[in-house]
Amino acid sequence: MTVDSSDVMAAVMAQKDEAAALFAALRAGSGGSYGKGVTRDTYGRGEAFAHQLIADHARRMGLEMHLDHAVNLFMTLPGQDRHAARLMTGSHLDSVGNGGNFDGAAGVVAGLIAIRSLQTLGLNPRCDITTAAIRVEESVWFQVSYIGSRSAFGMLPPGALEAKRIDTGRTLADHMRDCGAAVEDVRSGKASLTAKSIKAWVELHIEQAPQLVEAGMPVAVGTGVPGNFRYPQVVIRGEYAHVGLPRRFRRDAVLAASDFAIALDELWKRRDTEGRPMAFTIGRFHTDPGEHALTKVAGEMSLSLDVRAYDRIDLAQLETDVISLARQVAEQRGVQIDLGSRTSAHVAPSDPLVVGKLMEAAAKLAIPTMRLPSPASHDTATFAVAGVPTAMLFVRNVNGSHNPRESMEIDDFLQAVAVLTYWLAAEAGSIAAGQ
Amino acid sequence: MTVDSSDVMAAVMAQKDEAAALFAALRAGSGGSYGKGVTRDTYGRGEAFAHQLIADHARRMGLEMHLDHAVNLFMTLPGQDRHAARLMTGSHLDSVGNGGNFDGAAGVVAGLIAIRSLQTLGLNPRCDITTAAIRVEESVWFQVSYIGSRSAFGMLPPGALEAKRIDTGRTLADHMRDCGAAVEDVRSGKASLTAKSIKAWVELHIEQAPQLVEAGMPVAVGTGVPGNFRYPQVVIRGEYAHVGLPRRFRRDAVLAASDFAIALDELWKRRDTEGRPMAFTIGRFHTDPGEHALTKVAGEMSLSLDVRAYDRIDLAQLETDVISLARQVAEQRGVQIDLGSRTSAHVAPSDPLVVGKLMEAAAKLAIPTMRLPSPASHDTATFAVAGVPTAMLFVRNVNGSHNPRESMEIDDFLQAVAVLTYWLAAEAGSIAAGQ
Repeated sequence: MTVDSSDVMAAVMAQKDEAAALFAALRAGSGGSYGKGVTRDTYGRGEAFAHQLIADHARRMGLEMHLDHAVNLFMTLPGQDRHAARLMTGSHLDSVGNGGNFDGAAGVVAGLIAIRSLQTLGLNPRCDITTAAIRVEESVWFQVSYIGSRSAFGMLPPGALEAKRIDTGRTLADHMRDCGAAVEDVRSGKASLTAKSIKAWVELHIEQAPQLVEAGMPVAVGTGVPGNFRYPQVVIRGEYAHVGLPRRFRRDAVLAASDFAIALDELWKRRDTEGRPMAFTIGRFHTDPGEHALTKVAGEMSLSLDVRAYDRIDLAQLETDVISLARQVAEQRGVQIDLGSRTSAHVAPSDPLVVGKLMEAAAKLAIPTMRLPSPASHDTATFAVAGVPTAMLFVRNVNGSHNPRESMEIDDFLQAVAVLTYWLAAEAGSIAAGQ
Repeated sequence: MTVDSSDVMAAVMAQKDEAAALFAALRAGSGGSYGKGVTRDTYGRGEAFAHQLIADHARRMGLEMHLDHAVNLFMTLPGQDRHAARLMTGSHLDSVGNGGNFDGAAGVVAGLIAIRSLQTLGLNPRCDITTAAIRVEESVWFQVSYIGSRSAFGMLPPGALEAKRIDTGRTLADHMRDCGAAVEDVRSGKASLTAKSIKAWVELHIEQAPQLVEAGMPVAVGTGVPGNFRYPQVVIRGEYAHVGLPRRFRRDAVLAASDFAIALDELWKRRDTEGRPMAFTIGRFHTDPGEHALTKVAGEMSLSLDVRAYDRIDLAQLETDVISLARQVAEQRGVQIDLGSRTSAHVAPSDPLVVGKLMEAAAKLAIPTMRLPSPASHDTATFAVAGVPTAMLFVRNVNGSHNPRESMEIDDFLQAVAVLTYWLAAEAGSIAAGQ
C-alpha cells in the first residue's frame, strides 16, 4: 500500500491530544508545573521517571522494546525484513536542572507520534523503524558530552565512567549501575548500535534560538551539529590585595577574567562578520565565595568555557586563538590562567541526501521550511561521527531551551512530526513516487 | 623639662622587644601563626581578645582606662591640665577574615609604645594624651564604614544598627550588646568624643601599597583619606539561555558584568593619566551558584563595587560616570543593572599644620619621609569630618594589607613611632624650640 501527503498530515494531526497529554504527563512527573522548571536528572530519579512513562506508552502501542547495556531505550515497529538497515529517530529524555519540558523529550514523543501515524495509516514498513530514548545527553551533569549515544556505539572514553555528577559527587559508573546498566560492557566498548545497521537517523528538537520566529517558519531542517572544545574548570590566579592598592600594583583576577570574556566576545563578533559561525559561553564565572569581600581586590576567578563551530578547521583555529588570548591576558594583568581539563566533540555535518529528502517531504506537505545549522550539541553528532547518515528537524521556539520558559506550539511540533512521518513512510517504501 | 630628638629615638628603640612581643601575642590569640591569616572578627571573639590584651597592657602602664557606649577603648596618660584639648592617637583592633596582624593593631601598639617612651623620658604633658582602640573599622563585616569611630562622635546613622554581620547574619545592635555596648546611646547619637576636646588626631598604619618600598623610605606622612561610595549588592539581570543561542539574541550577564568592570578600569586609567587619583574595586563578582552551568548562558551576575577618590568634586563626578556607564552597558547588552543599596563616606584631607609638624618631626629625627595620600579608608576620616585636625603616618609594607602576608619590619615601625612620639612631646610642650 502507499500513502499520500494529505493522509500523513491527517494521521499526525489526529494525535494532537495524545501528544499534548504525553508532554503534560512528562512535565507533571518532572517537578514542573507550566512555566516552572523541570529537572530530569540523568541516571537519576527525573530521567528514570521519563523513561518509565515513555516505555509504558510504547508498550501500549505494541512496539518491540529493547534496553541496551547503557539503559538506552529502543522502541521498534518491526519491518518486513528484520535484517535490513533500520530507520531511526528519537532524542534524549534527560534535562538540565530547572530546564524546560521540550529539550530532548520532544524528539522522543515525535518518534512515537510518527510511528503511531504509520500504524494508523496501516503501513507495513520494509525495514524496522526505531524510536530511541537516549540517556544523558545534557553534559551539565557529568561535564562529558554524549554519554548515552556514545555508549550505544561503544565509543565512550573509559575515563568518562569516573566523571562525577556535579550535584551528587558520585561517579557515572555508580549512577549507571543504579539504573541497571551493564557498566563493564560500557567500559569494554560493547556496541548496541552499528553504523551499517542504520540506514539513517533523524532527530527532531526544539530550536534553541528564535531564528525560526525571526524567519516566520514553523520548521527547519538541520544542516549540521557543531563540534566543540570545553575547558570546564578554568582558574585565574592573581593576588588578593587591599582595596586601597593603586592600579599599577594590582593583579586583579576579576579584571583579567573580564578581559578574557570580552576578548572572546570580540573574536565572535569578527567571526560572525566573516560568516564563520561559532559560539562561546562562559556559564560559570565567579570569585571564591570563601575569600571575596567588598574591600578586597579579588585574587582568584573560576570559570567554565564552551566553544563551538561547524567547521573542523575553524574549530582548531579557534582553540589556538583562545589559548593565545589567555596568554595575552595573563601577561597584561600579571595573573596565571590555568585552563584545566579539556573535553571536545567532533564537528558533525548532516548528510546532504537526508537533508534533501526532509526538504522534499516538507515541500510535499506544503510546510514552510528552511535550512539551519544547529547552534547546540545533539546526540545526532554521535551518529554522524559513527558514520550514520543524519539530519535534524527543528521546531520553532521563542524562548530558547534549558530554561522553564521553553515555548513550543503543539501545531508547530505536529508539522515537524508530519515531515518526519512522511520521510519515514517514503524511506520505508510506502509513498508512491510523485505523491 | 624638655627632651631632644636623640632621647626620643633612644626611648622608642628601647621598646623593640616589647613591641615585638605585643604583636606576637596579638597574632597568637587571633588564630594566626606567622604567615597564616588572623581573624579578629568585630564585636566578636577575635576583636574582644585583642581589646582584652591591649587593655591589660595599658593597665600595667598605669594609664587611665575608659570604655565608651560603643565599647571603644580610650587609654590616657593624664596631662597637667585635665580640661585642655587632648592629643589623640590610635587605630582599630578588628581585622578582615584571614587578614594580617598589622592592619589596625599597629596603630594601637604604636600609641602605647609612644606613651611608654614619654613615660620613660619623664614627660609631664600639658594636656591628656590618649591612645584609642577603636571598634569595627573593617567595613567587610557589616558593610558599613567607620562604625566604631562614628559611634564615638554620635554620628552613626541609626539604620546601621540593623545591618547584619555577613557571617553570623545577626545585627550590629545584637553584636554590640553582646560586648556590653549601650546600644540605645549609640542609637540616640550620644558622643564620647567631641571635636573641640581634641587638639589633633594622628593615626599610624601600615601602608596598604608598596609605594614606600618603591620609594625606598620607611615612613610617609598621610595627606588625606579618600571618600568613597559603595554599592555592595549590584545585580545584573540578563536572560538564561541555551549554549547554542546565537550572539545577536543573547542577553549575557557575564559579558555585561565584564563590560562594566573593563569600562571602570578604562576610566581609572584615564584618571591616573590626568593626575586625578581614584580607585575602584569589584571584590565580589559571580554568577548564581544555584543556576550557573557549563552549557547555559548566564542570566544573572552579582557584584560589589567600592569607588574612592581624594577630592569631593572628583568623587561626585565619578559617581555620575559610574551610573552612566552602567546605563550604557545595560542598553548595549540588553540587561538590567540594579545598583542596589548605597553607602558613602566623605573625603577627608589631612590638616596641613599637622602634616607639617609630622614632616618636621621626621626631619629632626633624620628619618627619610614623603607625603602620601592614603589609598584606603581609615577612622581618621571620621575625626576629620567631625572637625578634628588630623594626619596619618604610614609604615613601609611590601605585601599590602588584608592578607596574611602583611609584612612590616619592626625597625620601620619604630621609626614611625619615633615621629609620633616626637610630635606628641612637642605638642605637649616638652621639646624646646630648635631641638
